[in-house]
Amino acid sequence: MVARMPAALAIAVDLGGTNLKVGLVARGGRIVAKRSQAVAADRGPGAVVADMAELADALIEEAAVARAAVRAAGVGSPGPLSVREGIVFHCANLPNWHDVPLRDMLRERLKMPVVLDNDANVAAFGEFHHGAGRGCSDMVLLTLGTGVGSGIVLDGRIVHGHFENAGELGHMIVAADGLPCPCGQRGCLEQYASASSVSRRVVSAVERGAACTLGEAIRGGEPIDCIRVEEAAKAGDALCLRVWDDTCLYLAIAAINIQHAFNPARVVLSGGMSGAGAFLLDPINEHLGRQRWKLHEDLPEIRLSDLGPDAGLIGAAALAWQIG
Amino acid sequence: MVARMPAALAIAVDLGGTNLKVGLVARGGRIVAKRSQAVAADRGPGAVVADMAELADALIEEAAVARAAVRAAGVGSPGPLSVREGIVFHCANLPNWHDVPLRDMLRERLKMPVVLDNDANVAAFGEFHHGAGRGCSDMVLLTLGTGVGSGIVLDGRIVHGHFENAGELGHMIVAADGLPCPCGQRGCLEQYASASSVSRRVVSAVERGAACTLGEAIRGGEPIDCIRVEEAAKAGDALCLRVWDDTCLYLAIAAINIQHAFNPARVVLSGGMSGAGAFLLDPINEHLGRQRWKLHEDLPEIRLSDLGPDAGLIGAAALAWQIG
Repeated sequence: MVARMPAALAIAVDLGGTNLKVGLVARGGRIVAKRSQAVAADRGPGAVVADMAELADALIEEAAVARAAVRAAGVGSPGPLSVREGIVFHCANLPNWHDVPLRDMLRERLKMPVVLDNDANVAAFGEFHHGAGRGCSDMVLLTLGTGVGSGIVLDGRIVHGHFENAGELGHMIVAADGLPCPCGQRGCLEQYASASSVSRRVVSAVERGAACTLGEAIRGGEPIDCIRVEEAAKAGDALCLRVWDDTCLYLAIAAINIQHAFNPARVVLSGGMSGAGAFLLDPINEHLGRQRWKLHEDLPEIRLSDLGPDAGLIGAAALAWQIG
Repeated sequence: MVARMPAALAIAVDLGGTNLKVGLVARGGRIVAKRSQAVAADRGPGAVVADMAELADALIEEAAVARAAVRAAGVGSPGPLSVREGIVFHCANLPNWHDVPLRDMLRERLKMPVVLDNDANVAAFGEFHHGAGRGCSDMVLLTLGTGVGSGIVLDGRIVHGHFENAGELGHMIVAADGLPCPCGQRGCLEQYASASSVSRRVVSAVERGAACTLGEAIRGGEPIDCIRVEEAAKAGDALCLRVWDDTCLYLAIAAINIQHAFNPARVVLSGGMSGAGAFLLDPINEHLGRQRWKLHEDLPEIRLSDLGPDAGLIGAAALAWQIG
């Protein structure tokens, strides 16, 4: 009896500030198996790399595939980092990480080619190949979470730029002399369009005395997240509706600026806030309709993420195929 | 006696709204000869293409080079246009131009390969190969004139995007609910950073009663251009200084947004306003210093155009080498 030829597989690693996810992904983008655990943030990069390798080994064993079928590994990591050098310069949530040669450390453990890229770039690459960007050649992803991350794919390739830090669209300035951002600038998009900014602006308006159905909860010290604001807005709370609509205006402005910068076919929205679905998309499209530019018909289509939290693993595998 | 091998040459065409320039350009970017004349805007595309071909023939004859030494032609044209199809969709200053197959019309007349691109893209390509962008792999050009044009070169290639209209950075929105722009949007960069916007804002402030050393000239109906404002600012006029400094703030914001979008090594400023030199660059760099982002050292260097009004011809020739 002849054994069935094993499908080509890739190891995918999605390193977050709190969670480490590792997957075994088939060529077509299907996750064969995955595991996740807390990042050993306090034990340093060596321990985290060891965890990555152990999870990968466990997945290979669990799936009962030949090691030779696993061609390469792709890693998405918080940055800033260098794709060319395979080095993570530093990570906000991993205090002991400075100039970590993550790519080569993991290659040594896994004994296979490894490619490293920024987490948002990797998620964009996943959506591009197997999600909401499928079938087009140019796509920009915005991740709406604590901040606004982004990844840019042009002509099928991730844009890195000279300093390898392209696609930090959360820090494009949309308001001169606007809200201060911890990054050192003022008026950054992520002060107006991240999930955190939504709840922050509601809390701050309540603290300044605005009426709000969430007022009691806020004054009682309950943590308010973007979903609470979304629910209150849906229930008709005027303050929450205004903040939500403002957020959609700034997302429309982001889409317009992306239109004029990269002229992609699609802008894909992901992260927790994209769970709001039509409640997010409809007002963004209304704002886009209100200031549609007349010079050319080239507005990108705004779509919601197809892959959700799996975009990082699927994208890391898609990256691995570039070398595997 | 053996004739000296002729250098490889390209025909370069720079089609503007008012002037048509044609050049004969050597491989290294040197303009061997050039001619210019008014665009026959009222006689339609056929007449303009005939003029292009006649100017090209005259230059070849004048330079006494063999026609075989001229490999190809590059054309920069106002847009929007399609590089892939070689078609100019329409031109603000050429009223009878609709879906003109400019590339193929000129190829028929010149009997050589022709490549067409947007004027700002072509100027960017010229600066990239032979001007202020020489020696780097990623560069963004901003042209500061009636509007703000731009061209983006990443990894040595002009960025076009899915709809072939990438790099319209003059229409990125930098102020939500800002000044209306004839394009249909509000708060476009070119309302705050073009040469025309500089004089327009001074005139409008004077009309609203602001004191200004240009007040008498403005009330007397004299046309005020950006250079008059620059001179008045240099002489210490408070209003002109404020408008000039505001303009530099918005150019700094443009540079920051370019940094986070494309992460290029350089941003090159061209157009009439770039003649102000250090009087323009210094305040832009001061504004950049005031809100420098802390996450990564990746601010592009801001430079002034090296090629000035020749960037279009030199860039069109550089484009021609891509196919010639």
